Amino acid sequence: MSETINAAYYRRNKSFVVETAPSPLPEDDEIAIRIAYCGICGTDMHIYHGNMDARVGESRIIGHEMSGVVEAIGANVEGVSLGQQVVVRPLDHCGDCPACDAGHTHICHKLKFLGIDTDGAMQEIWVVPAHTVHTLPDDMRLDHAALIEPVAVACHDVRLSELQSGEDVVVIGGGPIGVLVAMVARDAGGNVVISEVNPNRLAIAQKMGFDTVNPAEVDLAATINERTGGKGADVVFEVSGSQPGVDAMTTVAATRGRIVMVAIHAQKPTVDMFQFFWRELKLIGVRVYEPVDYEKAISIIASGGVDAETFITDVAPLDDIQTAFEALDRSPTAMKSLIKVGKDV
Amino acid sequence: MSETINAAYYRRNKSFVVETAPSPLPEDDEIAIRIAYCGICGTDMHIYHGNMDARVGESRIIGHEMSGVVEAIGANVEGVSLGQQVVVRPLDHCGDCPACDAGHTHICHKLKFLGIDTDGAMQEIWVVPAHTVHTLPDDMRLDHAALIEPVAVACHDVRLSELQSGEDVVVIGGGPIGVLVAMVARDAGGNVVISEVNPNRLAIAQKMGFDTVNPAEVDLAATINERTGGKGADVVFEVSGSQPGVDAMTTVAATRGRIVMVAIHAQKPTVDMFQFFWRELKLIGVRVYEPVDYEKAISIIASGGVDAETFITDVAPLDDIQTAFEALDRSPTAMKSLIKVGKDV
Repeated sequence: MSETINAAYYRRNKSFVVETAPSPLPEDDEIAIRIAYCGICGTDMHIYHGNMDARVGESRIIGHEMSGVVEAIGANVEGVSLGQQVVVRPLDHCGDCPACDAGHTHICHKLKFLGIDTDGAMQEIWVVPAHTVHTLPDDMRLDHAALIEPVAVACHDVRLSELQSGEDVVVIGGGPIGVLVAMVARDAGGNVVISEVNPNRLAIAQKMGFDTVNPAEVDLAATINERTGGKGADVVFEVSGSQPGVDAMTTVAATRGRIVMVAIHAQKPTVDMFQFFWRELKLIGVRVYEPVDYEKAISIIASGGVDAETFITDVAPLDDIQTAFEALDRSPTAMKSLIKVGKDV
Repeated sequence: MSETINAAYYRRNKSFVVETAPSPLPEDDEIAIRIAYCGICGTDMHIYHGNMDARVGESRIIGHEMSGVVEAIGANVEGVSLGQQVVVRPLDHCGDCPACDAGHTHICHKLKFLGIDTDGAMQEIWVVPAHTVHTLPDDMRLDHAALIEPVAVACHDVRLSELQSGEDVVVIGGGPIGVLVAMVARDAGGNVVISEVNPNRLAIAQKMGFDTVNPAEVDLAATINERTGGKGADVVFEVSGSQPGVDAMTTVAATRGRIVMVAIHAQKPTVDMFQFFWRELKLIGVRVYEPVDYEKAISIIASGGVDAETFITDVAPLDDIQTAFEALDRSPTAMKSLIKVGKDV
């Protein structure tokens, strides 16, 4: 173990610098992970754009969509071994709020998100609480494993939708999370249609084998009704974060349909509440993931249920993190951009 | 059985006329019921105000919150006997739409609501499809039994909320349905608070033993947080149909709280969709009732779980239906006004 590591620091104004830092050591209840890959999340792009400066501070190592191998183990930690392939579920809860008391630790009232509220995975060695670590199969590719975090988001969304095999699904919004939700829903047996207005994203979704609708060109509700014999979609995922997406979600849902609110709506949209009453619709808010979703995501990546090769559109070394963010920011076709953090992992 | 009956016809312009009509006979799959009491529903008031003229036509016998006794039985009907006390679940489904196919006949795409889309119970003898009839205990008071239909609405709402005994409940809106929802939720073991701005309704709710909050005077969310140790309400019923009610529902709900949309929002409200994501809230649309809700409502009325004596604020004979509607329309304190339809029932 070397005495220094490379780490990328977000220093505001859309800028990262890569510097050396002392190699961190784990406390008794922690694990040190040598990072292999770290994906760039939509939240990381928000940070890059300066929208979360107050939260992340002036010199934050960001990154949470990672994979790596165990480098060192704290004295109290059991169940992992040196060199084992792992990922981190980057949520640290307080254990003492009403949400934690009710068992919903993933939406703890004082949740710390590792890599946002603490330093993250854009560094060669990352030290995390042992309870956040999930072990991987020895033969899993670590670039594919860097998708486990966003796939776990999708697994959480699909699990809480209670999707049954054979049900009709509409995913509103075909960005990275929308496509992953679509993949996990298809893996669960759903008949999935992706609604998206961006032609580049439509092309990628089609390449991944999805039926798509461009609601700027055709009547989405009429199309879904035609496909489903007038029934509508049993499950709708609203991933667009837009008013048109919220308008569409109530028009495509079947009677007693479940609408899953994946998107973050910073503005309060208007909602056709009458339809919730009239057709007994259900709206299900979903956020991050629970341990079971991580295990599901690991098994889906292991089984090839996610088309990782198509989904990963760029890989760049840590030294090039600045240009990687700049390229992703202006790319109309990128899905997932990975940073190869460690040279030898 | 006499050859003619009295029936009240809604003839538009806030007017009813009571006329005699031929006494109706049941077809093979129908039951004729001698009506005892028929409550005036909020929907009946909408009809009275002319808001549903296109739907009800020019000479409709309205009314669906009824009780009565079996007067005649169609040839194919089994399971009821002459003179038996009954109520009607006033929903007639098509049996052939996607909602019916999925077993959700109560929200059939072509649902006929008896007493709105067909003639109703404001007549001495009402003939209905046999499948809509529920039998009552012999010793149940028929004035109390006229509350079974609105209580069944509340039973449906509470059942779909999956309320557990000991959970904290906020009912937003203390009108007739809100108070019944509160009663049924209390009967199920909920710790109920009613939020209402109308002083008359607050006084009635308090008389029925409920804790109340006037959100025009105190901070509702702070009050609920204080009562629940910072947790919030496990179940929220939005019965106000107002934008302030929709604003309040997301502020009082606990993390993973269930919000039940009871109200009919003719306008599309703005909704704090971010809170649905952030705290994994669930919104559950609810409409009318299913047979199990009717059976539950019958058992609650039988056990005294609803304070029928306080809830029924007026009773008038059929001949006085016009003045009964006029009085209810201007009363600030009325909860439920019943019409005594039959003279000898």
